[in-house]
Amino acid sequence: MRLFSRSAVILILFTAVTSMVSIQPKVTRVVFFGDSITQAGAKPGGFIVMMKDALTQKGLGSQYELIGAGIGGNKVYDLYLRMQDDVLSQNPDVVVVWVGVNDVWHKQTYGTGTDPDKFEKFYTAIINKLLDKHIRVILCTPAVIGEKADFTNQQDGDLNAYSQIVRNLAQKWHTGLVDLREIFHNYEQKNNPGNKESGILTLDRVHLNEAGNQLVAEKMLETLTNVK
Amino acid sequence: MRLFSRSAVILILFTAVTSMVSIQPKVTRVVFFGDSITQAGAKPGGFIVMMKDALTQKGLGSQYELIGAGIGGNKVYDLYLRMQDDVLSQNPDVVVVWVGVNDVWHKQTYGTGTDPDKFEKFYTAIINKLLDKHIRVILCTPAVIGEKADFTNQQDGDLNAYSQIVRNLAQKWHTGLVDLREIFHNYEQKNNPGNKESGILTLDRVHLNEAGNQLVAEKMLETLTNVK
Amino acid sequence: MRLFSRSAVILILFTAVTSMVSIQPKVTRVVFFGDSITQAGAKPGGFIVMMKDALTQKGLGSQYELIGAGIGGNKVYDLYLRMQDDVLSQNPDVVVVWVGVNDVWHKQTYGTGTDPDKFEKFYTAIINKLLDKHIRVILCTPAVIGEKADFTNQQDGDLNAYSQIVRNLAQKWHTGLVDLREIFHNYEQKNNPGNKESGILTLDRVHLNEAGNQLVAEKMLETLTNVK
Amino acid sequence: MRLFSRSAVILILFTAVTSMVSIQPKVTRVVFFGDSITQAGAKPGGFIVMMKDALTQKGLGSQYELIGAGIGGNKVYDLYLRMQDDVLSQNPDVVVVWVGVNDVWHKQTYGTGTDPDKFEKFYTAIINKLLDKHIRVILCTPAVIGEKADFTNQQDGDLNAYSQIVRNLAQKWHTGLVDLREIFHNYEQKNNPGNKESGILTLDRVHLNEAGNQLVAEKMLETLTNVK
Repeated sequence: MRLFSRSAVILILFTAVTSMVSIQPKVTRVVFFGDSITQAGAKPGGFIVMMKDALTQKGLGSQYELIGAGIGGNKVYDLYLRMQDDVLSQNPDVVVVWVGVNDVWHKQTYGTGTDPDKFEKFYTAIINKLLDKHIRVILCTPAVIGEKADFTNQQDGDLNAYSQIVRNLAQKWHTGLVDLREIFHNYEQKNNPGNKESGILTLDRVHLNEAGNQLVAEKMLETLTNVK
Repeated sequence: MRLFSRSAVILILFTAVTSMVSIQPKVTRVVFFGDSITQAGAKPGGFIVMMKDALTQKGLGSQYELIGAGIGGNKVYDLYLRMQDDVLSQNPDVVVVWVGVNDVWHKQTYGTGTDPDKFEKFYTAIINKLLDKHIRVILCTPAVIGEKADFTNQQDGDLNAYSQIVRNLAQKWHTGLVDLREIFHNYEQKNNPGNKESGILTLDRVHLNEAGNQLVAEKMLETLTNVK
Repeated sequence: MRLFSRSAVILILFTAVTSMVSIQPKVTRVVFFGDSITQAGAKPGGFIVMMKDALTQKGLGSQYELIGAGIGGNKVYDLYLRMQDDVLSQNPDVVVVWVGVNDVWHKQTYGTGTDPDKFEKFYTAIINKLLDKHIRVILCTPAVIGEKADFTNQQDGDLNAYSQIVRNLAQKWHTGLVDLREIFHNYEQKNNPGNKESGILTLDRVHLNEAGNQLVAEKMLETLTNVK
Repeated sequence: MRLFSRSAVILILFTAVTSMVSIQPKVTRVVFFGDSITQAGAKPGGFIVMMKDALTQKGLGSQYELIGAGIGGNKVYDLYLRMQDDVLSQNPDVVVVWVGVNDVWHKQTYGTGTDPDKFEKFYTAIINKLLDKHIRVILCTPAVIGEKADFTNQQDGDLNAYSQIVRNLAQKWHTGLVDLREIFHNYEQKNNPGNKESGILTLDRVHLNEAGNQLVAEKMLETLTNVK
């Protein structure tokens, strides 16, 4: 004597599977690929952690997995070298690339920055590899080396130029863009009347303080949740 | 029997002396003290030669002597080293100091630029020596290394910062100022819509073409003829 | 009625194939992978052309195919980026890697040299990719930037250090090594009594003159024909 | 009636003067003019203090006055700028000039080193000013930036070249010379078998540890007490 007919069993199983799917929606895996700023972003108080908290508060916590892949001192060609191991191996749906500060800064500090044409070339190679694998890409312009609001920081010329390269790449390859260079500059013009070198959005001219992490988290989240 | 009375002799002598004075007015000796840009300015087609021509056209040709003292590659401390030989020995009434491009540029090209605090220190020493000798001083801000109008030239951050140092020195020591950095930037914003690196006011991103020489000649002349 | 038995046919075919192999021996394809020095080496008068001539004179001309793959301004990470397109796609049997001058030199000229740890890292990645494909590898140490024989050339410290990195890599990975740094230094000590900067083995402190090309051709050929 | 004859008076005066001379011999004032290494040398444990102690032990303590005039970060043109205030105003009999490390090092760390021709030019100007005032001059070659004994420290090429400039100046102007570059190199070859970067004669690749201070004190004292 059977409690359920074969059809009934099938129906029950189908319903169960369907409901499981409905409570386990596709999780969007996001890898943040960058330098020491991104590395710090994955630590407590960092912008990636802030983004996780914000997603949870919006009830979207289960829909995103945010993964930090930042390494201090990295330039664009360092990202290229470790793409397979640190990014592609994670099977990401989205990769947020934020690089450029060291490419500019190390010219002055070590004599080992990156020429603008090489910056574009390696950046293009990274984008190509990601798009080939149907990964959505979000680019970020390098924000600041020094927070003075009147373009008197030593690297301002290069940061403006390399940011323009990133903007052009985003436009050419139809990627997302978080234009942190512009976002920071606008913020400094309003909130740095004393023309200070640091302490507004950074701890040390480069790495983010709490306000900096909040600003980046907010702007990245906007772009991340809008990118299809 | 006297040919002339004493009064007549006095009158004649007075007239003679007066006429001598009227045909030999005090000449203002102006030394242009700087780098290769100033060196080129003293050659045919250069801004110093253009200034001479303009003074002659205004009927002031006999009132000014313009002397070039520019040497290629000079930085602020090179000027300091050769002040006595090349400037003070000329007994100038006015010295136009135009330096700074190499102090900034040589950081990148040779690793031998000038730190901003040292730039200010040597510049101050030069101003002090000139003022001690009651020489009128006119300072110039460094104009451009690259003519792109949107602050994307590599050295724009430093050029803005070093120009600010020069402006502050001019204000502090009550010297004349030809703010070539600002003059060029305004000109580029109007006349360089293609955001070219050179060819608007320079031949090669740094050294003046004809339009550049004309612009500098005009602005320097304004300041020179107004400085008391 | 058959003219030949099956066995006879097989014998004839076997003989034909064997004789074809004997008159078409395996050609060793050698790719020279490097910067402007290697690029020039593939042009008339260059060391690669000299090596071809020398192989022909020895009756080995048909056993080697020498292919230039040098691009001016390349650093180690540039080689890494274009490995697939320019080297692996050629199915080489041997790759001669000669890089390092720009990694050191561009520190001073553009602020875009390569840190020693990154130099080693990218060099290792190149070696690994080649060995994975069972390609024989010959490394070369960077020769000179300036020919003064007493270690007073500005980059001598770095060239000595980066050459040591290359020597260590050759030892670690059991590759061939042409120690051009040492070969050139020994040559300069004997043949540059006036301690000149250029004109002994180079045209311009870096790129090879005829004597330089001959020296390199001779030493590379020794290693190439000895490497198994 | 006189108490003393004229001869007696003369004898007494002669004796008095002689005894005054014997208890107040001419003191040789020595100014040590340099950078942070010299600045540290005047502090407890520094080479200048060690030299004082050594002179006292030899019973020569009252014959020499040793005065430190080192300022951190100084390059040759900084010495030139502050000569009057810090050296000539002290009326020295001897000036020991030790400079060059920052002229070389700051090329890499800040892009603000000193070109070799400028190094020689400012150094010559310093020597001339001292010799004009009949001050005895002792030059020192820059010792080390990194203690590796095989010329693989990044700045070895430049340190060798700038030391050669100093040696040539000492020969040309017949000054004393303490060839610290050579002294240190010889010491490292004997005492640094592990090819360490620091810890043999320096604390940090540049500034002297106890052994370094002792070596410098000993060699400077030799030259100081021999220079006429």
